[in-house]
Amino acid sequence: MQHQTKPASVTTGPVIGSKKIHITAPGRSDISVPFREIALHPSAQEPPFPLYDTSGPYTDANQAIDLDAGLAKPRASWVAARGFAKLAGRLVQPADNGFAAAEMLVQPCPAQHEIHTGKAGQRVTQLEYARAGIITEEMIYVAHRENLGRAAAMPGAAARLEDGERFGANIPDFVTPEFVRAEIAAGRAIIPANINHPEVEPMIIGRNFLVKINANIGNSAVTSSAAEEVEKLVWAIRWGADTVMDLSTGRNIHNIRGWILRNSPVPIGTVPIYQALEKVHGDASKLDWDVFKDTLIEQAEQGVDYFTIHAGVRLAHIPLTAKRVTGIVSRGGSIMAQWCLSHHRESFLYENFSEICDIMRKYDVSFSLGDGLRPGSNADANDAAQFAELETLGELTQIAWAKGCQVMIEGPGHVPMHKIKANMDKQLVTCGEAPFYTLGPLTTDIAPGYDHITSAIGAAMIGWFGTAMLCYVTPKEHLGLPNREDVKTGVITYKLAAHAADLAKGHPAARLRDDAISRARFEFRWEDQFNLGLDPDTARAFHDETLPKEAHKTAHFCSMCGPKFCSMKISHDIREDAARVAGLEEKRADFNEGGQKIRVPITDI
Amino acid sequence: MQHQTKPASVTTGPVIGSKKIHITAPGRSDISVPFREIALHPSAQEPPFPLYDTSGPYTDANQAIDLDAGLAKPRASWVAARGFAKLAGRLVQPADNGFAAAEMLVQPCPAQHEIHTGKAGQRVTQLEYARAGIITEEMIYVAHRENLGRAAAMPGAAARLEDGERFGANIPDFVTPEFVRAEIAAGRAIIPANINHPEVEPMIIGRNFLVKINANIGNSAVTSSAAEEVEKLVWAIRWGADTVMDLSTGRNIHNIRGWILRNSPVPIGTVPIYQALEKVHGDASKLDWDVFKDTLIEQAEQGVDYFTIHAGVRLAHIPLTAKRVTGIVSRGGSIMAQWCLSHHRESFLYENFSEICDIMRKYDVSFSLGDGLRPGSNADANDAAQFAELETLGELTQIAWAKGCQVMIEGPGHVPMHKIKANMDKQLVTCGEAPFYTLGPLTTDIAPGYDHITSAIGAAMIGWFGTAMLCYVTPKEHLGLPNREDVKTGVITYKLAAHAADLAKGHPAARLRDDAISRARFEFRWEDQFNLGLDPDTARAFHDETLPKEAHKTAHFCSMCGPKFCSMKISHDIREDAARVAGLEEKRADFNEGGQKIRVPITDI
Repeated sequence: MQHQTKPASVTTGPVIGSKKIHITAPGRSDISVPFREIALHPSAQEPPFPLYDTSGPYTDANQAIDLDAGLAKPRASWVAARGFAKLAGRLVQPADNGFAAAEMLVQPCPAQHEIHTGKAGQRVTQLEYARAGIITEEMIYVAHRENLGRAAAMPGAAARLEDGERFGANIPDFVTPEFVRAEIAAGRAIIPANINHPEVEPMIIGRNFLVKINANIGNSAVTSSAAEEVEKLVWAIRWGADTVMDLSTGRNIHNIRGWILRNSPVPIGTVPIYQALEKVHGDASKLDWDVFKDTLIEQAEQGVDYFTIHAGVRLAHIPLTAKRVTGIVSRGGSIMAQWCLSHHRESFLYENFSEICDIMRKYDVSFSLGDGLRPGSNADANDAAQFAELETLGELTQIAWAKGCQVMIEGPGHVPMHKIKANMDKQLVTCGEAPFYTLGPLTTDIAPGYDHITSAIGAAMIGWFGTAMLCYVTPKEHLGLPNREDVKTGVITYKLAAHAADLAKGHPAARLRDDAISRARFEFRWEDQFNLGLDPDTARAFHDETLPKEAHKTAHFCSMCGPKFCSMKISHDIREDAARVAGLEEKRADFNEGGQKIRVPITDI
Repeated sequence: MQHQTKPASVTTGPVIGSKKIHITAPGRSDISVPFREIALHPSAQEPPFPLYDTSGPYTDANQAIDLDAGLAKPRASWVAARGFAKLAGRLVQPADNGFAAAEMLVQPCPAQHEIHTGKAGQRVTQLEYARAGIITEEMIYVAHRENLGRAAAMPGAAARLEDGERFGANIPDFVTPEFVRAEIAAGRAIIPANINHPEVEPMIIGRNFLVKINANIGNSAVTSSAAEEVEKLVWAIRWGADTVMDLSTGRNIHNIRGWILRNSPVPIGTVPIYQALEKVHGDASKLDWDVFKDTLIEQAEQGVDYFTIHAGVRLAHIPLTAKRVTGIVSRGGSIMAQWCLSHHRESFLYENFSEICDIMRKYDVSFSLGDGLRPGSNADANDAAQFAELETLGELTQIAWAKGCQVMIEGPGHVPMHKIKANMDKQLVTCGEAPFYTLGPLTTDIAPGYDHITSAIGAAMIGWFGTAMLCYVTPKEHLGLPNREDVKTGVITYKLAAHAADLAKGHPAARLRDDAISRARFEFRWEDQFNLGLDPDTARAFHDETLPKEAHKTAHFCSMCGPKFCSMKISHDIREDAARVAGLEEKRADFNEGGQKIRVPITDI
């Protein structure tokens, strides 16, 4: 029971080959942004390579981690200066933890937590600040972060920029705080950062920025515990998750979320209807506006940064799903459909949307407008139900914007390749360029056990077309709850998909890393190749399976071809020969006499 | 040593959930084509589901496997009837096995093997037959195979056909032998089937057919043995490899290849320059036309079905690689570049291309024109070196066609998403629509350990655009030699990529499988879902990690959401409710009174 009642410890220490560094924003010594830095082999004669870093203090060798105390609060002073009201906060009730019996109750996270709320007429959200022309500390932070800590535009960036197809995206050479502000003001980007989540290291979601990824965690009625969930959070961000959604559905939802929020440097998203349903003992027909509203306030006070709200599942849309091959596959969508049908009434989320906006605005909780009618199979992709809901999400976006709320839009799901672009194009038009946030999409249904891959194909493509954040899919999709290893596989897979999208869009910073690793590969700097990759541990382990000796880390060949056949080795010889030929030709010597032997390195293998 | 001198045993028995069946071609009881069939749960009320099957007799419960005797020879009588000359065959020399010492020598496969060769003026190749208007048994076989054993066009196929984007491909509703003949005659498709490989179950490679995949196996100077290689072959085809390339580079190349060929039901490809280089002790400058020609004859007599020939690496192209980030990464390409530079002469492959055609034609060995200058990094994609070589491959295609040889063209490599389509478009124009056969391409360089995924993204896309066969990449790419598990991961990954491409092209047979698995998913037929997937073993194991009990195989929920939240369960309830609402409305009853509870199945979890 020890493990069930309180998280024990989590994975800490630097990613192998990396060092945490902090670079302050230009002219703002109070805004310190973390990066990872990889020192390269001296033979490279290259400076350390900087990486965007999502992993928080957990990978900082100089920081102690105390889950009870929670993380440091980089945003606390910024939020404090904005003059929000302090609240005593809503009292925790047994329903909040799914009526968990005392001996099964996860104890609350004891970390200190002050609760703030915006007053009427007071600016709270990043959108409200942006519209007022005010650049917040969060905007400065994310600009610096997107620039990988550079103080000015990169030399040569302009040339790289032209090497991409952008489909209307407008990615600048250098991200200024003013650019961030303007993108947020236009609704094209959001900084999900609840004023009650001061632990957040701010990040931005928008198609004119680096493509982001989300990892889902959460216990279920069947399995998992608080300890596992906090470790999954820490593990997911270690490998690159930009945000994490807590999709818990069992007991202890409130207290597990407390542990997660107080220990999360990334924005946390939730689907409040899941907890609301627990409060009414799993009977969707018993849901109502009051229990839902109370849940929103509960979670907003805890500090959740974005809410999935399935307000687009309207009564009139439900019959459109009747002939589908896989019906409704979104949990939130099916809960709301069940509610609408059992009461034969319009959705209470849709009817109370305006008040939902008022609540979320007060804490700056961002909307993630849920696609409750997303297709669950290729057969159902791009159908009337899906697009009817998308039209409604477009309406709701306008309402939320009018209320001052930040908004992103969730997207599918299961979509064959030839129908992916239509999703992106339609979302941009229908939702006024609000950021798109898609689950995959999976490009075929026939590979259970490999849906991280079927979906990475779709994710890379839709990311290229303009999706701002990709929700990961793990190998366990359709089959079971992901474990720690599945979380890592899902995160790495989505990092590579997001990066492939950045490359194809011609993001000025993206190809630097590919080129650095390619140079390392060509120069047989094996350690640099491992460390510059997304998963140094796995790369090293794979290499060492066949060539374990330390000497092989500097060998000018690998086990694939062996020493005689190494094409890269031969390429080096060719370059030397080419230089020699050039020299010889100047002297008009006859090169035909000079056949060179391929040098085989003498290494014990 | 036991294991090193002779293959022991290989994996046999049906893929779980499947049964091998044979269906004879319409009107040709002598042409029997194997398929896999999956019996579905009785509740499905659906007939058994047929699958294209590459696995050969190894998965046939009714066949005994004897590696010494080799496989049965479905093509033997067809080939015999064509009246080719019988040859005594070239004598095996110590060089053929890389001068392996007696105690290290793999013993030759004792299976009976007759050697045939075409006479001057005699039709030999499938291309020559096709041009003469003759439909061969191989053409009938592949037509039936592509139709999944259907005797006539599928009902509803026309409707499905419109659901795809084809980029100029011309996929028929129903594949007739005459269509196959016409495609081969036009050079748009090949049936790689050496007349000395009668064990082959014929298959076709062309963009108007199902997208195929190739798996590479082969020992290297560093590791591997004959036993491992034969098992890798059997293992790769079990999971769906349509062809296998033996890329061995160490000793025993000749004898290992013998074991592979006599026991392979799929076409085998090789890169003859690898063996030629072993014959000259790994010194590229010592290669010459005679040793290469002798190697071609040696391998053609053994029965190799296609040769990668790097005749496009011309002397003039080599300087174009000098400023690349990763130089030349094709082994064959770098060997030829080294030869050209050290002799300062035009490639002997290019200069003797006409004679290469004459040799290959006599056995119907198909060309796989190698892309020796393919990019090894995103930085080098679509550069002058790559496209200069492609132009040369276009010239060589015309020569090979004029000589009566079947031809496909190899493609990259490492290519970011936005540069993939240009590769396909250029290949189609430059090479007269000869089938394209690509390695990936990898869409980013930053994920060593995950390059099966970085490349599956590119492979699915280029397959959609028109590539006929995708060469797999395993998780070990850039790091080491794939083991058995890596081979499986690579094959399954490429099967899903190829299938995603078929779906996006709107292949009339492709979506049937997705829809079948989606129905199984929606109806909680867990066993059907596992069995209809590409890897039933992994899907079942993943499911059972959290819900191991047999009762859970019929449970109307899974561990992801637990029983209360199952969206599919709720969808079923919605359908029932919807039906009820429809009924009620007819009676004009007030449905508002009829709130239904979500039924929670009572199951021990």
